[in-house]
Formats: sequence, C-alpha cells, structure tokens
Amino acid sequence: MTSTRPFSLAVVPGDGIGPEVTAQALRVLDVLAPQHGVTFERTEYDLGARRWHATGETLPDAVLEEIRQHDAILLGAVGDPSVPSGVLERGLLLKLRFELDHYVNLRPSKLFTGVPTPLAAPGDIDFVVVREGTEGPYVGNGGAIRVGTPQEVATEVSLNTAFGVERVVRDAFARAQARPRRKLTLVHKNNVLVHAGHLWSRTVETVAAEYPEVTVDYLHVDAATIFLATDPARFDVIVTDNLFGDILTDLAAAITGGIGLAASGNVNPDRTAPSMFEPVHGSAPDIAGQSKADPTAAILSAGLLLDHLGLPEAAAQITEAVEADIAERSGARSTEEVGEAIASRVAGEVSTVA
Amino acid sequence: MTSTRPFSLAVVPGDGIGPEVTAQALRVLDVLAPQHGVTFERTEYDLGARRWHATGETLPDAVLEEIRQHDAILLGAVGDPSVPSGVLERGLLLKLRFELDHYVNLRPSKLFTGVPTPLAAPGDIDFVVVREGTEGPYVGNGGAIRVGTPQEVATEVSLNTAFGVERVVRDAFARAQARPRRKLTLVHKNNVLVHAGHLWSRTVETVAAEYPEVTVDYLHVDAATIFLATDPARFDVIVTDNLFGDILTDLAAAITGGIGLAASGNVNPDRTAPSMFEPVHGSAPDIAGQSKADPTAAILSAGLLLDHLGLPEAAAQITEAVEADIAERSGARSTEEVGEAIASRVAGEVSTVA
Ligand SMILES: CC(C)[C@H](C(=O)O)[C@@H](O)C(=O)O
Ligand SMILES: CC(C)[C@H](C(=O)O)[C@@H](O)C(=O)O
Repeated sequence: MTSTRPFSLAVVPGDGIGPEVTAQALRVLDVLAPQHGVTFERTEYDLGARRWHATGETLPDAVLEEIRQHDAILLGAVGDPSVPSGVLERGLLLKLRFELDHYVNLRPSKLFTGVPTPLAAPGDIDFVVVREGTEGPYVGNGGAIRVGTPQEVATEVSLNTAFGVERVVRDAFARAQARPRRKLTLVHKNNVLVHAGHLWSRTVETVAAEYPEVTVDYLHVDAATIFLATDPARFDVIVTDNLFGDILTDLAAAITGGIGLAASGNVNPDRTAPSMFEPVHGSAPDIAGQSKADPTAAILSAGLLLDHLGLPEAAAQITEAVEADIAERSGARSTEEVGEAIASRVAGEVSTVA
Repeated sequence: MTSTRPFSLAVVPGDGIGPEVTAQALRVLDVLAPQHGVTFERTEYDLGARRWHATGETLPDAVLEEIRQHDAILLGAVGDPSVPSGVLERGLLLKLRFELDHYVNLRPSKLFTGVPTPLAAPGDIDFVVVREGTEGPYVGNGGAIRVGTPQEVATEVSLNTAFGVERVVRDAFARAQARPRRKLTLVHKNNVLVHAGHLWSRTVETVAAEYPEVTVDYLHVDAATIFLATDPARFDVIVTDNLFGDILTDLAAAITGGIGLAASGNVNPDRTAPSMFEPVHGSAPDIAGQSKADPTAAILSAGLLLDHLGLPEAAAQITEAVEADIAERSGARSTEEVGEAIASRVAGEVSTVA
C-alpha cells in the first residue's frame, strides 16, 4: 500500500468520562490506520458542560456546519449535574442526531465469553437493536403552561411518520436478512399507543412481504423486557421506536456485561451527513477523572465507525481484540490499561489464544 | 361474630385465562369471608372479546354505572388476538381505570423464598411500584392523518398535570414513610421529556420537604432497568408515570418469578369510586382453557383487594398462604390445584411449617 486514504473525524469528547474513554478509542484507531492504509484527520470540538457554562452555547450552528463536513463523528458522553437536565441532551446530543438525520440508532448486544452477566442462565445472547433515531417521543414537541402552579399542564408529543418509520424498518429488515437467523421482532405498545403503534405494525407487515425469508414477530415493550430477562437468546434483530429503544438497549447492556461494553452507532444510512458513534453509557460524573471508566464501549463504537467507513476488516480486528481481552480480564485495570491492552492486541503485539 | 358485613364485588373475568384464574381468587375469598365475618356479594360482568364480537360493545355506560356502585372490582384479564389491538385495552380496561379514577396503580414486587428467578444473585427484592394510572401517554390523546399512505403522520400525546402528578407522588411518599427503609425513587426521563419530566421532578422535590425521613433519589427509566437487572434490592418505593410503570413492572415481575405471581391494584385512594384488582399478566390466549395458568397473581390481587376493604388480617393470610405454597411447590400443577392448595392453607387445613 503506497497511498493512504484520508478520513476526517469530528471528535466530541464531551463531559465526565467522555474524554477519557474517547482517548482510548482514538489510540486504537491510530494503531489500525497504518495497517489499513488510511489516516484519520481529527478535529476536536469542545462541546458540553464546560462550553455551556462559559458561553451558554450547546451546539452553535457554525459548529454544526463544520461537523457536518466530516466523514464521521466520534462522541464520548454528554451531560453533567451542574447543567439543568435536558439542556445538553436536547441542545447537543439529540440536536446532532436529529440534524444529521441519524435515523438508525444501531445497538448490538452480544454476550462475550467470560463476561459477568446478572442472568443465571443467559444463553447465547447475540442480537442488534435498530432504534429509530429521529422521531417518536424524542422530537421535543411538547410544552407546559402555568409552570410551577397547581394548574400546571405539561405535554410531550410523540411524532411518527410513515416516511420515518418505513426507512428504519427497511434498514432493520435488510440487517435481519443478512444475519444467519433472519428474525425480526417489532417492539411497541400498539394496544395503548394505537395510532403510532398501528403505523409501526402496518409498516412492518408491508415491508415483511418483500422479505419472505425473515421471520417476524411482535412484542409489546413490557413483554419485551420480560424476555430480555428470561430468554434474551430469542432475539435477533429488534426494531423499535426512539424511546422504547432507549429503554431496551440499557437493559440489553445490563444483561450483556454492563454499559461499560455497550457500543452504538447513530447512523445516517443515506450518507447525506456523517454518522456518529458513541458508547451507550453516559458521562458518569461520579467516576470522572479517576481512570476508572471502562473504555471498551467507546472502542467498540470506534469499530462500528470503521465498519461504516468501509473498513470491515479493521472493525473485526477491534471486536476480536476486545473479545480476547475480555476473556482474559481479571482484577481492576485503569482506563489506560484497558485501552493499551486492546491497542496492543490490535497491533498484533499480543497473540490471541484461539 | 354474629353479624356479617356485606361487600359487593363486581367481577370481570374477561378473556383467555382470565376466567380460570379469577375462579381461584374467588374460591380463596369464599374461604376467608366467614372467618372475618364478611360476605362478598358478587355480580359477574360479561365484558371482553366475546361481548365485543357479539354486540360491538366494550364497556357500555350503563354497565360502567352499575360497576361503579360496588365496593371493589376483581378483574381477570382482557384482550384477545381476534380483536384488533387496542379495542379492548382502550375501550374496557383503560376506560375502567380512567373513569373510576384509579390514579394509583399499585404493583408490589417481592421475591418469595423458593421462587425461581432469572437473576444469578437477586438479593432481597421487596419493593413496590406506584404507577400513575390516569395520565401520561395513556390518555388516548393522539391521532393520525393520511392513514395508510406514505404521508401518514401519527401522534401520541402524553398529558401530565400538577394535580395528577402531585396526588400520586403524595400517595407514594406516604407509602415510603410507612415502610422500614423509607426510600423513594422517582423514575422518569427528564433529560429528554423535559416538560413532563420536570413537572415530576419538581413535584417530588416539593413533597419531599414534608417527608424529611424519606430518602429520595431519581433514575432515568433506562438506568432503572439496569438496576432492576443488577441490583433490584436497592429499590423500596418507585413512583413513576403510566407508561414507564407499565414497562418497569413487567420487568419487576420477570425478576421475581414471572407474571404468574405479580399482583396489582388499580386504586382510587379517595374512594370516590371502587378500586380494581387484577393480575399484571394478560389473557394468555395460547394457554387459555387448559388449566395451565398460575392463579397465584389473581389470588394475591384478591389479597390487595382485602387490604383495600379494610381487612388487612385476611390479606396477610393470603400472602402467608402463597408464601408457604410457593416454598413447597414442585412439578406442574393445574390452575385448580394451585387454587385449592392456597385455599386449604387459608382455611387452616394445611399447617404451615414456620
Ligand atoms: C443522554 C440521553 C439523551 C440518551 C438518550 O436517551 O437517547 C442516552 O440515554 C442514550 O441512550 O444514548
Ligand atoms: C393490557 C394493557 C393495556 C395494560 C397496560 O399497558 O397498562 C397491561 O400491560 C398492564 O400492565 O396492566
């Protein structure tokens, strides 16, 4: 390989443990780049609690437009108790997801060998949640009157469109078709949220006709949590709305070793804007700055980023390195130690016992 | 005891396994009544799938008004695949909850000794979820335009009022105050659903000032599912909105032995209308009519009913009988066998080894 392909990455380390785990994800990317004849040109964006306190800004339009010019985004975590709840989530994280049309929020759940799980008999857990990312109760459509009085009324509106539901359902079916088990489960609450729920159900039914090899079933969200606790191996691809996906993927992370291992991609499958990769976990301010955070989720998210950029071999190297590292984990290690261990494996400096 | 106090019960066996499990709950009530100098005058209401197919009715106003005249309602389960999703849920079950102002949906979760749980190290699980029952995303406020076309838009509106939130939060604090651990956890998603979420958070903060002995914390709903899987013993009283409560209580049931054991009360604490008691499980049409359903949840729900009617000793007898029965369970038993076993214990025919 003589020429290198340059990729531009926007990096948003964010708050709390965000910068610590992001540093380890970047370290692993740096090891992989020369192996695959690519370079990652990184621009770091100072967004999050510090900037909000200093300037009152969450995501200025000019910064959003700069970020938009990149090939992909790596994000650490956003949110801090010193900032009123919702300001950074709505003004920064969700603004990125919505403005960059990340309609597929992709969250794989796999129980790696040797990972402690709270389940007594977890079985072979290996599924992916395709969470809608740009609609539903997350649209920020709602309000309140007479705030702080006994007559206060507050609303939240879940907005769902055929356009928005169909495109994410199609993405989920394509993924199910490409997986060995070819199973798709729609999760919603169509016996109560009948308007949105029936739109989802009808859409799945329609698209299913184009995928005769994919087995389809439906679960109410409450029942889905039961199965995640009692029989998670039943799931292959789950497609669900923005809020249900948020809830199910934290539970999914819990049963597969915790949010320290859960990766996610906010994907714009049409590539009209850069996709964004981030661990499922939050900024964990209680352990920030102590080198206690597990960077594995951030590193696995970088793997999803590589896959999205057309480097599946590099992505597979990350998964293999993480699997091997996890199988041999014992005792507490610092954020840097975990990052270094995985980076060394990716570099080929540690041979992996098959 | 020479005179007996008559209580009037409206009984809605409903669909699927509803009638089977309700019969066992009534059998246990029949054993208890003479012991406590009360009678239960029962009126059965034929509501559910059969009636809807025959007449198109879900809950006619005249029937609702009749039911309203009773001291309490015992409900089995509602819903059948032959009826479009939502028709019976919205038209019957939720109509009862809303019309009778069941604003406290009470769902205790306790891991009884000997009950199989999917968790490897469950700890001492004993908490109660106070789920709001008359507001939130369950109000049925939403709609759709251009249904069935690529331009369809469907909305669901979550309605939340200071009045509605405060009364359920007060109920939850009173319950927390009366429990040994005096802990209350608010579960919401106030970093995304900021209007409704902040109403809930502010209300909890305000009422907390009146309960200095109650320790209060807050969890986002996604994080709450993690703790239900990894550390459920941390919970004492959870107060949450209608939809989050629906999801959390199914998960809570899963970790405490399954929905075959999960009881619930739809309580009108002001007693302006009868409260309604029902198992958390659904109508389970796949096992209906086969005597396979576990009636324990229905029987425990009858226990909550007794407590609500001012018969706490009778309620305690049910809990003790169920605990004793569970501790000795082995092998598959029919619905009737479980009902009979618990009824015999309540009758004092089986001595319970302490
Ligand atoms: C931080 C929050 C806004 C976010 C969400 O609810 O989507 C997080 O929980 C997640 O799952 O990525
Ligand atoms: C049947 C359905 C409408 C109901 C609910 O969502 O409240 C059920 O799941 C429950 O929890 O009682």
